[in-house]
Amino acid sequence: MPELRKDPIVGRWVIISTERGKRPTSFSAVSKRVAARMCPFCPGQEENTPPEIFAHRRPDSEPNRPGWNLRVIPNKFPALIVEGKLNREPQGIYDKMDGVGAHEVIIETADHAVDLVDMTDEGARDVFWAYRERMMDLERDSRLKYILIFKNHGEAAGASLEHSHSQLIATPIVPKRVSEEIDGARRYFEFKERCIFCDIVRQELQDQVRVVKDYDAFVAIEPFAPRFPFETWIIPKMHQSSYLELSDAEHLTLARAFKDTLARIKIALNDPPFNYILHTRPVSREHQEYFHWHFEIIPKLTKVAGFERGSGFYINPTAPEEAAAYLRSIDTADLARFRQSEPAESEK
Amino acid sequence: MPELRKDPIVGRWVIISTERGKRPTSFSAVSKRVAARMCPFCPGQEENTPPEIFAHRRPDSEPNRPGWNLRVIPNKFPALIVEGKLNREPQGIYDKMDGVGAHEVIIETADHAVDLVDMTDEGARDVFWAYRERMMDLERDSRLKYILIFKNHGEAAGASLEHSHSQLIATPIVPKRVSEEIDGARRYFEFKERCIFCDIVRQELQDQVRVVKDYDAFVAIEPFAPRFPFETWIIPKMHQSSYLELSDAEHLTLARAFKDTLARIKIALNDPPFNYILHTRPVSREHQEYFHWHFEIIPKLTKVAGFERGSGFYINPTAPEEAAAYLRSIDTADLARFRQSEPAESEK
Repeated sequence: MPELRKDPIVGRWVIISTERGKRPTSFSAVSKRVAARMCPFCPGQEENTPPEIFAHRRPDSEPNRPGWNLRVIPNKFPALIVEGKLNREPQGIYDKMDGVGAHEVIIETADHAVDLVDMTDEGARDVFWAYRERMMDLERDSRLKYILIFKNHGEAAGASLEHSHSQLIATPIVPKRVSEEIDGARRYFEFKERCIFCDIVRQELQDQVRVVKDYDAFVAIEPFAPRFPFETWIIPKMHQSSYLELSDAEHLTLARAFKDTLARIKIALNDPPFNYILHTRPVSREHQEYFHWHFEIIPKLTKVAGFERGSGFYINPTAPEEAAAYLRSIDTADLARFRQSEPAESEK
Repeated sequence: MPELRKDPIVGRWVIISTERGKRPTSFSAVSKRVAARMCPFCPGQEENTPPEIFAHRRPDSEPNRPGWNLRVIPNKFPALIVEGKLNREPQGIYDKMDGVGAHEVIIETADHAVDLVDMTDEGARDVFWAYRERMMDLERDSRLKYILIFKNHGEAAGASLEHSHSQLIATPIVPKRVSEEIDGARRYFEFKERCIFCDIVRQELQDQVRVVKDYDAFVAIEPFAPRFPFETWIIPKMHQSSYLELSDAEHLTLARAFKDTLARIKIALNDPPFNYILHTRPVSREHQEYFHWHFEIIPKLTKVAGFERGSGFYINPTAPEEAAAYLRSIDTADLARFRQSEPAESEK
């Protein structure tokens, strides 16, 4: 069983997950690329994945058989597992608990050759809708405090399979970076009685120097103090603390905004590896007034070296104003290559 | 001039250092390997580095000419620069200050083919002594709050030149990871009136499951909740809050302990890329009772993916107990290959 351990000094929890099979001697192995015909995420390979939890499939198709457009499955090598109690216990001066949680994979499309950025608007919307479905289901499990949605694209960003997918990890603690955002936003709210994210959106829309693109309900910005070059946030303009407050119709708007932003990054940086992650409020109904959900998209362009790993202090070689200007300047003709609207969807 | 910017939500400072020359279009360039004869850190290439700040050289040699064993120079592409005032100022709701600080390179040896682990004990001691010299000098600059010593070994760990070197970055703020350790250690001290690092050393020496090696004045341990596989700490057993409290004689003991630990890691993991970083107390004389200096050695064995980058929550596939057992089991005959004592030094 995976174990959650707390750093006794800084209080950071770490998942010790030896089930994932890295023995001390196995680190020299390079991660394997899988040919498309061997890909466990492709139709026809359903028996090579754990049984599906959720899917969009043709009415005449059977679970765990072909006929789907999107599938959610448990991760075959989970960092945390669903079974069991938390069993919080001390070990001398240390604290640990059992690694209870959920680790799922959202297979975003049946087509091995298509990334999120290449999907139809409706196909991409279904991905964002699947995030919602899984979050709503898992929020009923009282052991879980946080549900984290993220994507690794490209080997250098940690993807071990190239077939387009996202992941979900539900944890019995609130992750550190989210806690820090909540604490900072709470302090700001106590001082100003305003949401700091709303104030950021307001200032960015006024300054127009770090805005990548204004998508009406959402805006894509480069944050003022980004850790990484071309770090980009997609954030709703209206105050919403949880991703689950997104209306049905807004899922399509978000999908379009997301695809446009990803297309700009893909063109500007020659299809870079990237991660994105959803920051939403914890499962508990707290923090509604001052937390504000958003996606953080982080291209993997630089190596994180000793300075950053050891200090938590980041050196970013690209000013966000310069990155935003560059992403704004992408040619609309180049972007048009990516756009696919509903008719293309119906041909599937 | 580089700029320090504060993340308005979590309060983390970031260095925006566009002087380092990464334009938006330059990220596809791979870092270049330099042949030994072209290495700017080799003897005879002194005119290709900024003028030296400190050196160990033969009495008959001249500054910035061959005849040295160790040289400290300003970084040619500094993340922070020495000239100027801090100029703290707001920018709307945001905060920034000028990127004032120091960024130096410690060229550890004249021999391009030798890493720290291969040096004589005395050669390695001189490296640790140089850290002390530079820290003592820079502590006199009242603009500087923290002096960070670190090393990147291997390209994947961020080293752009292979000639053995460490770096020093002095900053006008205390880095986040160090602040968090200080805050955690202070809370523990308020509760227990004991140093948490001393308590950790005590428990580890008693349990003997995460101890790599006991070096009398120092001990190498795998921490209880490490972020990364084979993360290893070297920590003094006696309470010392600052690296500058190390006695003259202890520098040689530390060098021997360090070389032995690095040799174990090199053998166990086939010369992995790694970083190490010194955590010592800030320049201010505070925190003496509860902060406790140590080195953190972090091999670069896994990719940091979306989950970690976005959540600050780490998945570690190797239990520290297993890593410690593996590092303890390294054959003494293999370790003996690395040992070089004083006679070898005098032959130089």
